[in-house]
Amino acid sequence: MEKIVLSGMRPTGRLHLGHLLVLENWVKLQEEAKCFYMIADWHALTTEYENTDEVLQNIEYLALDFLAAGIDPEKSALFVQSEIKEHAELALLFGMFTPLSWLERVPTYKDQKEKLGEMGKDLNTYGFLGYPLLQAADILIYRANLVPVGEDQLPHLELTREIARRFNYLYGSVFPEPQAVLHTVPLLPGIDGRKMSKSYKNEIALSSTPEEVSEQVRNMITDPARVRKTDPGHPEVCVVHTYYQVFYPEKVAEIEEQCRTAGIGCVACKKQLAVKINEILEPLRERRQEFLKGKKYLEILAEGQAKASRAAKETMMEVREKMKLR
Amino acid sequence: MEKIVLSGMRPTGRLHLGHLLVLENWVKLQEEAKCFYMIADWHALTTEYENTDEVLQNIEYLALDFLAAGIDPEKSALFVQSEIKEHAELALLFGMFTPLSWLERVPTYKDQKEKLGEMGKDLNTYGFLGYPLLQAADILIYRANLVPVGEDQLPHLELTREIARRFNYLYGSVFPEPQAVLHTVPLLPGIDGRKMSKSYKNEIALSSTPEEVSEQVRNMITDPARVRKTDPGHPEVCVVHTYYQVFYPEKVAEIEEQCRTAGIGCVACKKQLAVKINEILEPLRERRQEFLKGKKYLEILAEGQAKASRAAKETMMEVREKMKLR
Ligand code: SF4
Ligand code: SF4
Repeated sequence: MEKIVLSGMRPTGRLHLGHLLVLENWVKLQEEAKCFYMIADWHALTTEYENTDEVLQNIEYLALDFLAAGIDPEKSALFVQSEIKEHAELALLFGMFTPLSWLERVPTYKDQKEKLGEMGKDLNTYGFLGYPLLQAADILIYRANLVPVGEDQLPHLELTREIARRFNYLYGSVFPEPQAVLHTVPLLPGIDGRKMSKSYKNEIALSSTPEEVSEQVRNMITDPARVRKTDPGHPEVCVVHTYYQVFYPEKVAEIEEQCRTAGIGCVACKKQLAVKINEILEPLRERRQEFLKGKKYLEILAEGQAKASRAAKETMMEVREKMKLR
Repeated sequence: MEKIVLSGMRPTGRLHLGHLLVLENWVKLQEEAKCFYMIADWHALTTEYENTDEVLQNIEYLALDFLAAGIDPEKSALFVQSEIKEHAELALLFGMFTPLSWLERVPTYKDQKEKLGEMGKDLNTYGFLGYPLLQAADILIYRANLVPVGEDQLPHLELTREIARRFNYLYGSVFPEPQAVLHTVPLLPGIDGRKMSKSYKNEIALSSTPEEVSEQVRNMITDPARVRKTDPGHPEVCVVHTYYQVFYPEKVAEIEEQCRTAGIGCVACKKQLAVKINEILEPLRERRQEFLKGKKYLEILAEGQAKASRAAKETMMEVREKMKLR
C-alpha cells in the first residue's frame, strides 16, 4: 500500500527550535511516503477569528520555515488549507452523520475551551466544536494513512478513524483508517525556563540571525545557586543544560562534569551552545535565502496547491459517487 | 437598492399542489428582483444522510417542477446548491464566530429533532445543528436582501440577520440584513384530509396527468354524513370544498349553496373541481414538455450554476479580503 502522509500547522507566527524537532520527522517521512504538508489557516480561525490581522503574514512565515527546515517541494505538496475548498465540502458532508457527542467528548475540547476561556476567549462556537471534524476532512481528503502527531492529538486521530469507518459503512469504502506516527519530541522550555510563548519572548526562532541566537542563549536562566564561577553548578536545574541534551547530546556528559566541578564558567558553556545551535540553523538559513529569492516560496505554494487540489478533487469525485450525489 | 432574492427547496420528491401556492410567489418576485432559486441537496442530507438513493432523481424532478411552475431561466438563476462549493466555505467561516447557543435556541431545532427522533431518525448530528448556518450562507453569499419564507422559517431568517450583523461588526460591512417576504399560503390537506405526505399517497403532484388528477379528486374525502345524493351536505367538513376555496374561489359560494341544499351531487362537484385543477396545471404541462425536450432543463441548471457561481465567487473575494485571508 502506498504510504500517504498529511500533517499541518497553524500560521500563528514564526516557528522556533521546539518546532524543529517536529519538522525533522516530517522531513524524514518524505523519503518513504507521499506527503501533504498544510498551512492550516482555517484552523487558526477556530480560536483567532476575532483578530485575523496577521494570518497572511504568518502564512508566508510558515511556508518559509517549512522550506528552511527541509520540506522538499519536489517530494511533498506544501499548500494553504483554505485554497482547497474541498476540505470545507468534505467537512460539511462528514458533519451530516457525525453525532454531536463524538465531538463533545474529544478530551481537548473541554480543556481548551476552559483554558482559552480563562484568557478571555469565547470558544463556545460552532466552529470550535467542529474543529476535529475539519481535521478529519483534512486528513481523509488525501486518503492519508499515516499522520505524524503528538500524544495529545491521538483522540483527534481516533475520531478521524471513526468518521472514516462510519462513511465507509454508510456509503461504501473510500477512506483508509489512518495510523499515527507518534513522534515523542522532548518538551523544550523557553530561555527563561517557562513554557515557550510568543508573548514571553522566550523563544529562539528558526529564522534568528547568528547574533540573535547568541543573545537568546546568553539570556538563558542558569543554576541560580551558582553565583561565582568557582561555585559548582547543578546542571539539572539549568535551561542551558536542557538545550545541550536536545541539541548537543554528544557534549552533555562533558558539560555536566565540568559544571559540577566548576571546571567551566556559564559564559563559556553558553558560548559553545550558541555555536552549536547556529551550526544547526546554518543550512536552514541557506535554504531560506534560496526560497526567498524572487519570492520562490510563493511559486512553491502554488505548485503544492495544484498537487493537493488534484488529489482532493479525485477523492471528492469518489465521495459524491458513493454518496449518490452529483 | 437592487432587490435580490434567494429561496430554495429540498429535493425530496415530486412537488404537489400545495407547493404551487409557494412557487406562485417565486414567479411573481422574478418581475421585481434578481432571483436565485436553489435545489438544496445539501440540506436534504441533514435529515436524509442515511438514504441518498433518490437525491439525483429528485433533483431532476425538482428542476422540472420549478420550470413548469414558471421559474424563468432568462430571469432567474436556477441551480443545485452542492455545485457551488462556496456555500460550504462561507458556512465554515460563519461557524467560527457563531455561538452554539444561537443554533441551539432556534425553535425548529429541538422540535424537529424530537419529531423526527420519534420516527427513528437520529438527528443529534453536527450537520443538523448547523443547518440554519448553512442556510445563512446560502442567503448571504448572494447578498440576498429578500427571502420568501413561511412563518415557521422566520427564526432562521432572524439568525441569518444576526450572522450578517456579527460578520459586518467583526470584519467590515459585506452583507445586507435580509428581510422576509412573508407568503401566507393556505395549508392544503391531502385528498384524505390528513397532512399531505408522500407515504400517504394523498397528494396531487404538479406532474400528474389529467387522468391522475381526476382520479385523485374522485378519491377525495367528502362529508361523511352525506350518504345519499338527496342528503344535504356540510361543505365545511369536505376536502373538496377546501380545494374549491384555494383553486376555484369564484365558484365557492355557488357550490356551498348547492351542497347544503342537495342541489349537486358529490360526483358532479368533484368533476368540476378536477376540470379546474387540470386547467390550472395545463400550462405547467406544456412548459414541462418544452423543458424535457432534449433534456433542456440540464442546460438550464448549468447556466444557473454559472450565474450563481459568479455571484458567489465575487462575494467570497470580498469576504476573504475583509477577513484578511488569502
Ligand atoms: S555551566 Fe552550563 S550547565 Fe552549568 S549552570 Fe552554567 S550554563 Fe548551566
Ligand atoms: S357536494 Fe361538493 S362540497 Fe358538498 S360534500 Fe359533496 S364534494 Fe363536498
